[in-house]
Amino acid sequence: MAVKVTSRSEDYSRWYTDVVKMADLAENAPVRGCMIIKPYGYALWENIKEGLDRRFKETGHVNAYFPLFIPRSFLEREAEHVEGFSPELAVVTIGGGKELEEPLIVRPTSETVIGDAYARWVQSYRDLPILINQWANVVRWEMRTRLFLRTTEFLWQEGHTAHATSEEAIAETMRMLDVYADFAVKDAAIPVIQGRKSDSEKFAGAVASYTIEAMMGDRRALQSGTSHFLGQNFARAFDIKFLDEKNELQFAWTTSWGLSTRMVGALVMVHGDDQGLILPPVLAPFQVVVVPIWKDDDQRATVLAAVERVRAALQPGVRIKVDDRDEVSPGFKFNDWEMRGVPLRVEIGPRDVAQGQVVLARRDVPGREGKSFVPVDGLAGAVPEMLATIQANLYERALAFQQEHTAYPEDYAGLREAVAEGFAYAWWCGSAACEAQVKEDTSATIRCIPLAQGERAGRCVVCGEAASERAVFGRAY
Amino acid sequence: MAVKVTSRSEDYSRWYTDVVKMADLAENAPVRGCMIIKPYGYALWENIKEGLDRRFKETGHVNAYFPLFIPRSFLEREAEHVEGFSPELAVVTIGGGKELEEPLIVRPTSETVIGDAYARWVQSYRDLPILINQWANVVRWEMRTRLFLRTTEFLWQEGHTAHATSEEAIAETMRMLDVYADFAVKDAAIPVIQGRKSDSEKFAGAVASYTIEAMMGDRRALQSGTSHFLGQNFARAFDIKFLDEKNELQFAWTTSWGLSTRMVGALVMVHGDDQGLILPPVLAPFQVVVVPIWKDDDQRATVLAAVERVRAALQPGVRIKVDDRDEVSPGFKFNDWEMRGVPLRVEIGPRDVAQGQVVLARRDVPGREGKSFVPVDGLAGAVPEMLATIQANLYERALAFQQEHTAYPEDYAGLREAVAEGFAYAWWCGSAACEAQVKEDTSATIRCIPLAQGERAGRCVVCGEAASERAVFGRAY
Repeated sequence: MAVKVTSRSEDYSRWYTDVVKMADLAENAPVRGCMIIKPYGYALWENIKEGLDRRFKETGHVNAYFPLFIPRSFLEREAEHVEGFSPELAVVTIGGGKELEEPLIVRPTSETVIGDAYARWVQSYRDLPILINQWANVVRWEMRTRLFLRTTEFLWQEGHTAHATSEEAIAETMRMLDVYADFAVKDAAIPVIQGRKSDSEKFAGAVASYTIEAMMGDRRALQSGTSHFLGQNFARAFDIKFLDEKNELQFAWTTSWGLSTRMVGALVMVHGDDQGLILPPVLAPFQVVVVPIWKDDDQRATVLAAVERVRAALQPGVRIKVDDRDEVSPGFKFNDWEMRGVPLRVEIGPRDVAQGQVVLARRDVPGREGKSFVPVDGLAGAVPEMLATIQANLYERALAFQQEHTAYPEDYAGLREAVAEGFAYAWWCGSAACEAQVKEDTSATIRCIPLAQGERAGRCVVCGEAASERAVFGRAY
Repeated sequence: MAVKVTSRSEDYSRWYTDVVKMADLAENAPVRGCMIIKPYGYALWENIKEGLDRRFKETGHVNAYFPLFIPRSFLEREAEHVEGFSPELAVVTIGGGKELEEPLIVRPTSETVIGDAYARWVQSYRDLPILINQWANVVRWEMRTRLFLRTTEFLWQEGHTAHATSEEAIAETMRMLDVYADFAVKDAAIPVIQGRKSDSEKFAGAVASYTIEAMMGDRRALQSGTSHFLGQNFARAFDIKFLDEKNELQFAWTTSWGLSTRMVGALVMVHGDDQGLILPPVLAPFQVVVVPIWKDDDQRATVLAAVERVRAALQPGVRIKVDDRDEVSPGFKFNDWEMRGVPLRVEIGPRDVAQGQVVLARRDVPGREGKSFVPVDGLAGAVPEMLATIQANLYERALAFQQEHTAYPEDYAGLREAVAEGFAYAWWCGSAACEAQVKEDTSATIRCIPLAQGERAGRCVVCGEAASERAVFGRAY
């Protein structure tokens, strides 16, 4: 643990993997492409889950659980859907020692099996809307995998809703995109751009896909959560029909939306530095680590007694870890918890005890500048306040970083330059040909067409034809 | 929903399925043997999870997540383990469109893949103990399935711990058995017998398995949670070794323990009656349902205003559902929520509003006896008190039922009679032959050898040889 991570400037990709492993978030599993989420990484995921689950319930959703296995024939009912997912499927062909008559797909996503259930559950407009979320594992066979960012098995939530009208389903799609953005900004301290996916990037089977896109520390984009308006596509494929108020039979309108353990990767790459992880206090498994410092047994007893006073002052409001290990030095502990990104460190030595104070050291501001002396009496107020300051600072500097690396090119040469450096907001005529050309020339893709648009008339940065929207171009994970 | 369930006396098995379906807990999935856990059933599972997860964390455990897929070769490393699970495996043979070189098992339980990880994580005695739990889905191919009780895929938690000494691992095994018993008694209001499994019933690969056994409404036993002392079996198979304080290489000692969605089935069968589900208040998704009663629009407004006062008096401490549906009658609502087992109903009509009172109706005490009038002013105190009374009553009557149907036969004829009626505590010499004979003659099995034993000398109820322990015999799910 005394070994340092690769620096970001030397090799960003190795830096990422080093941090994930050395901060003890996850490791590769024996099965290719799968991962083991270690306790510290899982505690982070539990806090992410809690922040999302609360928001889902506040917006009227309930949780349920649908089966892991999906009959192959279900996927085939929606033509675009099966085409999109076919190359990524894991297939069970043997069950209980026998070859199965119909192979079973390990769910890559659950629109089909849930659509089949909704068809049974919905008869009348009174049965709508259905607002259900599921927390589950899904499997997509991936050739090139990276911990949290792209793994064969991953954990996520998938919301699936059915509505009586197109308007309601669209409103739901946008509401959940807002929920994701609210979570990203307030809990994860990650600024995001909300927008629509281009046709080439949308979910297989959707009418329209919406996304929150975030800028990572290497200025690449990470799609961090998506919300899909599925129109009547899955309702037609699975026969989700209802009698409306006029007693006429209609197909329902559905949506789906998901956010995954990928978010852990986003936290690493948006906030981390060359000392390791930096976690936003709202999500950090431990918000404060207390490191006692002593030289002999007398000091040890005195200092540990003071540590208990600190603990009493901060709990239960603050998530706190006291590192009272005997076998390693305080300096080792400092490095260890810096690597793990604990937002605030409390140091207490014998001199501090004598003076009735502690040292607070901010993870987000290295060196002396981030250190302050605080009287033990004032900790109950000072610590939560400082955690809020850290949370705000992480967001503000991520936003500043994103803005600094975002350009508004007006011509193609400018676009090529801009996407090499970060995000580019540029006029786009909407044609797939222009989109494809950018990708071929620069490897950048349209991350989204932002919901927030200013003026509505320009010239496509690729072909020069009339354009009514700007798209955000960028290289992506 | 106005349709009644089959009565228990007519057909207990159909009664069970009727209740699970009509109370909207779960339904069969399109894939044979799998189930869809519906929102109401899942809310119940969420409360079960919360009660257990809190206890796990209080006893020093952390959560993590290990992969769904296990290489076939891993299972084969522990001979008893692979023999026990082989007939039940689901096997992935195709991934990403290609036949896999080594087939992957969909985890039936995770001792093997976790053992492999612990071997990497453990070097020194300082790395021990490892105290990890995982919430996950598992798959065991089942020929005869029943919702919640036996399904091909089910949800559960599985704890996996590693220790430096046999004593510590045994203490952990018993601690977690106690945690399960504490949860069953205090949260689920289910009396359980804690005991050891006989060799023929123990977990494949364990040195000793412990169980909590509960009596269902048809006097059959349900194994409701298990805790296994694995000795060094999995440590040897997966090479979990550590340097002890004397710098000598030792194999670790491991445990595992699990409780599943089966617990939902136990709740149905222990507490339910011919009107449907009866849920213990600690776990009920809704502890109180409020049913407003009116005849015209004037009354409607008055009554709904009173309902809001009731809501304000009870929230946020009490989980409450206000059923203000217009399209169904109060009588329909009474039946509907009785079916769903809500512990307490609050009725409010215009006359109640005028008198500043409401009617409370207990689900566990049908008819007039369970009804009382309570002033609205007193609800904040009366409702939590009544919920506690209901919780206690459910436990006490389940315990009385179990005791009433438990016998202590001293000879074989008595045993045969007793297991036809319920549980039998009977002396057992410990031989597999005697155990097998009982099973052949009566279809009853040894549910456990209870931890609580009185005198320690008797004669085996089957063969008449000396016996030092009584076993609990019973027919089981």
